Amino acid sequence: MTGVVVAGDLGGTHLRAALIEPGGRVSAREERPTPPDATPTEILDAIHELLARVASRAGEPPAGACIALPGLINADAGTVILAPNVPGFRNLAIAGPLSERLGMPVWLENDASAAALGEHRYGAGRDTRHLLHATLGTGIGGGIVIDRKLYRGAKGLAGEIGHMVIDPSGPRCNCGSRGCLEAMVSGVAFAARATRLIRSGKSPALAAVVGDAGPAATDLFAAARAGDSVCEAEIRNGGHFLGLALGSLVNVLNPDIVTLSGGLLHMGEMLLGPMREAMFSIAYGPASGATVRETTLGDDCGLLGAAAVAFERLGTS
Amino acid sequence: MTGVVVAGDLGGTHLRAALIEPGGRVSAREERPTPPDATPTEILDAIHELLARVASRAGEPPAGACIALPGLINADAGTVILAPNVPGFRNLAIAGPLSERLGMPVWLENDASAAALGEHRYGAGRDTRHLLHATLGTGIGGGIVIDRKLYRGAKGLAGEIGHMVIDPSGPRCNCGSRGCLEAMVSGVAFAARATRLIRSGKSPALAAVVGDAGPAATDLFAAARAGDSVCEAEIRNGGHFLGLALGSLVNVLNPDIVTLSGGLLHMGEMLLGPMREAMFSIAYGPASGATVRETTLGDDCGLLGAAAVAFERLGTS
Repeated sequence: MTGVVVAGDLGGTHLRAALIEPGGRVSAREERPTPPDATPTEILDAIHELLARVASRAGEPPAGACIALPGLINADAGTVILAPNVPGFRNLAIAGPLSERLGMPVWLENDASAAALGEHRYGAGRDTRHLLHATLGTGIGGGIVIDRKLYRGAKGLAGEIGHMVIDPSGPRCNCGSRGCLEAMVSGVAFAARATRLIRSGKSPALAAVVGDAGPAATDLFAAARAGDSVCEAEIRNGGHFLGLALGSLVNVLNPDIVTLSGGLLHMGEMLLGPMREAMFSIAYGPASGATVRETTLGDDCGLLGAAAVAFERLGTS
Repeated sequence: MTGVVVAGDLGGTHLRAALIEPGGRVSAREERPTPPDATPTEILDAIHELLARVASRAGEPPAGACIALPGLINADAGTVILAPNVPGFRNLAIAGPLSERLGMPVWLENDASAAALGEHRYGAGRDTRHLLHATLGTGIGGGIVIDRKLYRGAKGLAGEIGHMVIDPSGPRCNCGSRGCLEAMVSGVAFAARATRLIRSGKSPALAAVVGDAGPAATDLFAAARAGDSVCEAEIRNGGHFLGLALGSLVNVLNPDIVTLSGGLLHMGEMLLGPMREAMFSIAYGPASGATVRETTLGDDCGLLGAAAVAFERLGTS
């Protein structure tokens, strides 16, 4: 049997580590909240501790480790260019220092790219050749598997589907552009719509469910599910734009499958119905042959993705 | 030396064939107009005749042939699904019958995909790893080279960038959607704008240059170059949308280079200036590392692309 690997999942809210076997079985797991107000060094110390702890529980020394994290990374150099949700993570060398401390090769990967490979190896995209994965959460990410290998592009930035421009006259995105996919449909975008609906007084039902922290995408969905048609229209409209984006990508990439993960999937058919309709109205419909499936990996999506990258880097899968 | 190949370029207006050496040298060439009002069989007879004629001039039997044509094709099956600009070209087997008649392997390729590989092997994209090519003509096509190989996708449809939705409230496209790239900026789109400008009386300068055949993209450009600011604004606006599309694709594919070919390049900086500006305003700017270059292959773009595909299929390049 090929050796196990160590997988890390470094996010703005949680740090996770696990020991994973080549078939995808998770044999040890550690998790803790990302320390609040911590420096980058303290965060790296914390993830190192988790990784070392799961590594110590392996029967044989793990063959390597991979850490998935949200943001722009230079995978080949093992550095973070910018991870907006992790404090201070900008132009930071990560893989090198951790590799020295752990005594094994360490790779870094964008979390959505890792998730794409995880779906391909262990999840909804097994036995396909070309796969596009979209992570639908607070932000929108993407990853591409081509010929059964993770595709990173020239500088490791491939798959950044969140900043495709979908509607040039749409809302301003955090990145400075207008009408990026992420500005049209994402946790952040839905929260912004909810805020506007409340201010305009157009949805008393929404105002009634929003907590002290201000409106979130989940509030918009709760009000919609309770029968508020204005909120439902916002979600259906988001699904429509998501479908235009994914349909455009199907035309460009012609993948075998499009896989989806992330918190927005809880919105179910209210989001995904209009998404599929728009997607197949513009993609080359039946000719494209593409199917759409939700992740089957659940909460382990990030860790299994990181493990899949480690195995691919090691040449053992 | 590896053998020469036969390249074919089958379009709605011209049929071309050439004998091409592995380094890209064109050593024999034939060309004729596509017979008007011809049946598919007559068109195939005509291209067969040209291919056979150049093949007969080879010092040794050519190793194979490839025909590039505009439309949806099934490259692996050697069939055309639909080529709207070639009369009757729908669900048509081409490679098999021609292979029997020519006595050599024959492959079929989408013209924009072939052009992408041609730019990579012989043109503006030499020595790059990942390349996106856009053909900017009557319609908009695209091709993708990944890891120095032509990327065709699951069903051979990859690279169809003309039907990405760029502006959901934009003009209706021939494909039925709204605001496809091809409906926003292309020869057809510019001709439609010109028609509207003339009808509205907003551009007397344009009305003065338009011939009996009705307005064409070239008329819009002629009027703009003669100082008509309304026409210039249309072209600059088209360049802006083209840049949004290409920038979105750079974010998704992160290629080393974006290469461009096609008749719209005659519009020069009036189109390409706003294109570059929009493109790098939304792509990960300098981080993407992508450069943009115009084709260096001129009129041989189609033939050299077909030859590059033949050599790749033969495993000799």
